[in-house]
Amino acid sequence: MNKNDKILIIGAGLCGSLLALRLAQRGFKVDVYESRPDLRTVDISAGRSINLALSDRGLKALRLCGMEEKAREICLPMYGRLMHDREGNTFSSNYSGRENEYINSISRGDLNAILLDEAEKHENVTIHFNKKCKNVDIENKIAHFKDYKTKEEFSIEAAVIFGADGAGSSLRKSYISERKFLFSYSQNYLNHGYKELEIPADSSGKHQISKEHLHIWPRGDFMLIALPNMDGSFTVTLFLSYDEGEYNFENLISEEKITAFFEKEFPDALALIPNIKEEFVNNPTGPLGTIKCSPWSYQNKTLLIGDSSHAIVPFYGQGMNASFEDVFVLDEILNQDLKDWKSIFKTYQKTRKKDTDAIADLAIDNFHEMKDHVANPLFKEKRKIEMDLEKTFPKQYSSKYSLVTFNENIGYYEALKRGRAQDKALLNLIADETIHTHLDMTKQELEVILDKVIKETNEILEEDKIAGL
Amino acid sequence: MNKNDKILIIGAGLCGSLLALRLAQRGFKVDVYESRPDLRTVDISAGRSINLALSDRGLKALRLCGMEEKAREICLPMYGRLMHDREGNTFSSNYSGRENEYINSISRGDLNAILLDEAEKHENVTIHFNKKCKNVDIENKIAHFKDYKTKEEFSIEAAVIFGADGAGSSLRKSYISERKFLFSYSQNYLNHGYKELEIPADSSGKHQISKEHLHIWPRGDFMLIALPNMDGSFTVTLFLSYDEGEYNFENLISEEKITAFFEKEFPDALALIPNIKEEFVNNPTGPLGTIKCSPWSYQNKTLLIGDSSHAIVPFYGQGMNASFEDVFVLDEILNQDLKDWKSIFKTYQKTRKKDTDAIADLAIDNFHEMKDHVANPLFKEKRKIEMDLEKTFPKQYSSKYSLVTFNENIGYYEALKRGRAQDKALLNLIADETIHTHLDMTKQELEVILDKVIKETNEILEEDKIAGL
Repeated sequence: MNKNDKILIIGAGLCGSLLALRLAQRGFKVDVYESRPDLRTVDISAGRSINLALSDRGLKALRLCGMEEKAREICLPMYGRLMHDREGNTFSSNYSGRENEYINSISRGDLNAILLDEAEKHENVTIHFNKKCKNVDIENKIAHFKDYKTKEEFSIEAAVIFGADGAGSSLRKSYISERKFLFSYSQNYLNHGYKELEIPADSSGKHQISKEHLHIWPRGDFMLIALPNMDGSFTVTLFLSYDEGEYNFENLISEEKITAFFEKEFPDALALIPNIKEEFVNNPTGPLGTIKCSPWSYQNKTLLIGDSSHAIVPFYGQGMNASFEDVFVLDEILNQDLKDWKSIFKTYQKTRKKDTDAIADLAIDNFHEMKDHVANPLFKEKRKIEMDLEKTFPKQYSSKYSLVTFNENIGYYEALKRGRAQDKALLNLIADETIHTHLDMTKQELEVILDKVIKETNEILEEDKIAGL
Repeated sequence: MNKNDKILIIGAGLCGSLLALRLAQRGFKVDVYESRPDLRTVDISAGRSINLALSDRGLKALRLCGMEEKAREICLPMYGRLMHDREGNTFSSNYSGRENEYINSISRGDLNAILLDEAEKHENVTIHFNKKCKNVDIENKIAHFKDYKTKEEFSIEAAVIFGADGAGSSLRKSYISERKFLFSYSQNYLNHGYKELEIPADSSGKHQISKEHLHIWPRGDFMLIALPNMDGSFTVTLFLSYDEGEYNFENLISEEKITAFFEKEFPDALALIPNIKEEFVNNPTGPLGTIKCSPWSYQNKTLLIGDSSHAIVPFYGQGMNASFEDVFVLDEILNQDLKDWKSIFKTYQKTRKKDTDAIADLAIDNFHEMKDHVANPLFKEKRKIEMDLEKTFPKQYSSKYSLVTFNENIGYYEALKRGRAQDKALLNLIADETIHTHLDMTKQELEVILDKVIKETNEILEEDKIAGL
């Protein structure tokens, strides 16, 4: 490893641009090749999530690169979920019992733009747009590109190549096609797809529903969600089965049926989406997939990072945060002054893989929680107890959601282990009627519950350990 | 679905030949295309497991096709594991406390041969050898082949195509390459590979070590196993990391080091493998992979069955049994007189997928158990209690191993759920010192243990259920 090593990053999306910035700050010479046009000059949002949830793990990585404040300027804090039932009634559920814990709605494009701007301030960074990576000769560290504008094909050789090229990564595909090593790989799709719609701002440019919440219309087999944008609009996403159930993407093809579906299931949302028919028909239906793979690196030559190595479903709001945290973890490994890129890459994967596997599984858990459990009485009682515990004992208790979202100093894997055990303990203590709640719990009453939950959680973890789980 | 439908089966291995036989017995017209030469006329065992474990699920499917007795004629019963330590001491551990429960060592080639013989007795079956399937046009149900002898390429159209073409299935690859639907797919490799060696028969053609056991040399990070053959020999398999640990396949390259490794770790086995150096160098090192995918079928046109849909690692001795059970389950679905192949295929996957996912996971569990836990005191005490319980209460208790291997009337998924909960209950009851054993347990003492294990197991299952696991 040498500061003069010429580094090639494939992809100038969120992960690629943050990685370029960080490597530039560390003094490396970095070239970034991106297949899309420069999003600062062309609107290319179609078909991709327009806004995302930025939370503590992502902010930690932005802070490392000096970008936290600039990002916060374009953030809209969301303090909890606001659930909408079929009759239009709503009830809210905070993300945390601690006041300073919330997530942020942020525009993917705006965030990407400030990262590109910052990266380009470094003279050792060059970003090339409209250059599509076709494949990578991993043995010789040569990436083959096609220029979308000139249609020319060309090749770039580098000292080391990073694939930050997302779920459809060309570098990962080259790992599969070149067959230089045993490559463990999985792509798992949910039976649900997603489609984006829009609630526009009102005539004075204001948000028509609370902008301090992530809105959810949970319906068991499917759901609608909405996140606020800075311009007063909301990006709405429908998650629905492709082919199962009474209503699904395959059979929602006539305008009548689309309207009937929304009238029955989401009447209050329908009233706020004026272009529902047009948007439903014209906006693409996207798949929801999880990608895991191993190894991420090939010798001292290439590394997959971000979604290219671990694409996840969006239900924990952690996709971008996990990719940003990748950059943070890699930076920590670089601080260890290991002898070569091969050692860096191996140490990075050894440190990081269990955590990205965990967030992939947590995101699937949350799919079921969001569309279904949030409206379930047992689950609601659990959340109420957790909010009370977090409020009353802010240092002693963190829910699974808090462990994942607001505890950036522990890894996702630890958050998963402890969080799942806590959920199991709480749900069983409630079901057994070992713990009860009422409206005004005293601190003493809550302390008894806290002790029971901690004891039961630790027993569950210990029993799992003895069983080798 | 129509009896005159021309059915094409790709692959005449164990699953393909049993499927061809069963479909022929049901009156279908079946053509089978196999890439290898006819194993009844040519020795083609190189690089593939020479013997396999046949147990109750496989026997159930063979019975359905009238092949149980013929198979039993070439079986060698193995009643338990015989563990060998570094000093050459051995201790045995039965597979079951019930006398009639054992597994069978059987030659892959001999079993395949009797299935091919039986299938070919049906005039509605034709088996074509040396015809390699290159890919399948799934939309038009046309399979493209190359004849290995004449080098000619040709295509076959059929009413329905079954891919029984194993872990490297060409039909499955066509699902991926044709991109007609969202295909969930995973290939996961262990860091270990395997290599086969041989303990020959003694000069009088007899087995040199017990032929009534599956022999294991567990060493924590790696292991050696041996299964008996009818000719007095044993097929020995070394499972070892490719690149980790002091000894691994990458660094065991000199004859000195190979011998030193065996002398240190497996001295008693080394004394029985005269051609160790030659075999170690010349025999291939194979990977150990798990393949899962979904959907298995495309419309009413094609179906993956056997290893092509669920390749598993060999540590539960269930690979062939699971594939044979596929044929049994498909046959049950055919009995339901569903209206078309699409319904048959969908019902088949709905019935079967959770079970093949479960055996894949169980086989990974058993990898760790065999190489490591079998020599662990806690594990040994668990096994002793389980043997006592099975012997004393044969109808009330079945270990996880028995549930998987000898209880062919419950699915693998149920065996996994109940078996894992039982293991967790037993290991925790032993670790807590809630239950104790001594050499001569009375029936009354064992009954107390049985009640505790059942109660604890049911509690674990109930707690998991409440937690939504």
